Amino acid sequence: MVTIKDVATASGVSPSTVSRVIADSPRISKNTKKKVRKVMKELGYHPNVSARNLVAKSTKAIGVIMPSSADTALQNPFFPEILRGIGSVIHKEKYSMSLTTGTSDKEILQEVERMVFGRYVDGIILLYSRINDPVTNFLRENDFPFVIVGKPYEQESMTTYVDNDNFQAGKEITQHLIEKGHEQIAFIGGSLDLFVTVDREEGYVEAMKEAGLEIMDAYKIHTEFLKSGGREAVEYLLSCDIRPTGLVVSDDLISLGILSRLEEAGFSIPEDISLVSFNNVYLSEITSPALTTVDIQIYELGSQSAKALIEKTTNMEEPPKRIIIPHKIVYRNSVNKLT
Amino acid sequence: MVTIKDVATASGVSPSTVSRVIADSPRISKNTKKKVRKVMKELGYHPNVSARNLVAKSTKAIGVIMPSSADTALQNPFFPEILRGIGSVIHKEKYSMSLTTGTSDKEILQEVERMVFGRYVDGIILLYSRINDPVTNFLRENDFPFVIVGKPYEQESMTTYVDNDNFQAGKEITQHLIEKGHEQIAFIGGSLDLFVTVDREEGYVEAMKEAGLEIMDAYKIHTEFLKSGGREAVEYLLSCDIRPTGLVVSDDLISLGILSRLEEAGFSIPEDISLVSFNNVYLSEITSPALTTVDIQIYELGSQSAKALIEKTTNMEEPPKRIIIPHKIVYRNSVNKLT
Repeated sequence: MVTIKDVATASGVSPSTVSRVIADSPRISKNTKKKVRKVMKELGYHPNVSARNLVAKSTKAIGVIMPSSADTALQNPFFPEILRGIGSVIHKEKYSMSLTTGTSDKEILQEVERMVFGRYVDGIILLYSRINDPVTNFLRENDFPFVIVGKPYEQESMTTYVDNDNFQAGKEITQHLIEKGHEQIAFIGGSLDLFVTVDREEGYVEAMKEAGLEIMDAYKIHTEFLKSGGREAVEYLLSCDIRPTGLVVSDDLISLGILSRLEEAGFSIPEDISLVSFNNVYLSEITSPALTTVDIQIYELGSQSAKALIEKTTNMEEPPKRIIIPHKIVYRNSVNKLT
Repeated sequence: MVTIKDVATASGVSPSTVSRVIADSPRISKNTKKKVRKVMKELGYHPNVSARNLVAKSTKAIGVIMPSSADTALQNPFFPEILRGIGSVIHKEKYSMSLTTGTSDKEILQEVERMVFGRYVDGIILLYSRINDPVTNFLRENDFPFVIVGKPYEQESMTTYVDNDNFQAGKEITQHLIEKGHEQIAFIGGSLDLFVTVDREEGYVEAMKEAGLEIMDAYKIHTEFLKSGGREAVEYLLSCDIRPTGLVVSDDLISLGILSRLEEAGFSIPEDISLVSFNNVYLSEITSPALTTVDIQIYELGSQSAKALIEKTTNMEEPPKRIIIPHKIVYRNSVNKLT
């Protein structure tokens, strides 16, 4: 199949220019349009749809874009839970959902191009929010309906998104450790190009500053949203000169890895090290000890994003919205009071 | 949208007859064909595809059919894990996957009809195997490529399927309890119209018989593949005259529910009651105690089913296959030796 990328290469322009030509954007010169359209014809490239131009029949399907790799993501209970929330809404409308399976940015973008130009879906939900994400850029350029779970890159943008107040949640959960007498507190999060990490980390920093506590650079650790990521974080922490007494961990599955690695190293939780976590996936009540964690209402994030997307696809005039889902701390047994 | 069901109602025939008319089956009389085709025309029903008649371009997508309800199923870690396995194979071929979201047989069948007649997918993986399943019947009648995870209803059929030897696995895990001195052993499984339950239960029965142990009717319990299902099973067990000392549980998530309910009721596992389980999802090593369970290699079930399906969709001459994935018992801490 000829892709938009092939057309771009053969025309000597960027793929986004090709997209704009398809959408007949006024930002593209007549000459470029002529050149690109000629190449499209030569290569036999037929965009089945430009969302901007067609009032097409509903496909009764939505695309769900996984971050980086479905293979990795589906190991984290966050994703099945958010799919449940999405499914709960779309099944009522008799929609199905199409999941990406690519493992690289490039593969995922190709899948999304196919969904959009092949008119396989009415709209798209992005299950992540990242700085300079090629998929988000592509959807914007093509005016294709989409909703982001997380905070979009361009704050001033016209994008509808569903998010928690992650800054506030990060601040509150850190304050909980501080109230229990902890002063050496480390933050362990995912990749820094994910807004969810940035926001939670900023909340942690704010809480530490307000309490007049020092934040060492070595206390900010970034790892993968997996059990193995948690284990690696512990290796790093154990090599620190001053060992923290409290950990703010941005994900329950990372916490699980931390617990298992700390136990192997002979530490007791919470007696030796206290830990607070995020997400409240069901495993957070099975671990020993059960985790004190921020319930971000994952199911609700999913169902609200699906609702907003269906509104958008059925009514092009629907204004963009910010939907903030409330969080609350669930107190369990992973925090010790320091005396 | 006009559905095959609408055509059936208006023609006074069954939906499967309509499917056979679309597929131009010799089993349908000329008169019936004429009548049904007239109704199709009147209602404006256009099957975009009959897999039998068209050598269509690949859609580069496969459909994945969840049992009963995605909302319920995705609570069980079995499903994200099998989706990972499926994804690992299809992403290499740059396929995406479309999940059903319906919560009733009727809704799911409608989604599958849409996938098939709308030509949204090249083939379908059924994540369950059930007696007299309308989706399976529909796919057979339309000669649409599909693969079953589990054992198909018609043993003599031409269906490709991927399964474990659940009878043997059920027998071995029950024998493990017997070897540890248990004689009162109960079996707790899912619904009896699922072959996986039937096979594992027959293995349990066989092991008990070979050891000359009595099986009470009250010791065979069927519940939902959920934590709540396990909790309900315990209510029932506690009302038995003779309490079993060992439990064979057909699913780790059910086991989790059993553990939590037994703990509430004041029992210690494995001191008071021993428990063996099935599936080896990751939560089986987090529970206290960690579960002795049958590793059925869920990821492999998924990847092999996707491989078999893609072979089938790309080569119509590919013969039907039975693919049996090996199992092995993972020994942990949920079994006590009786003396």
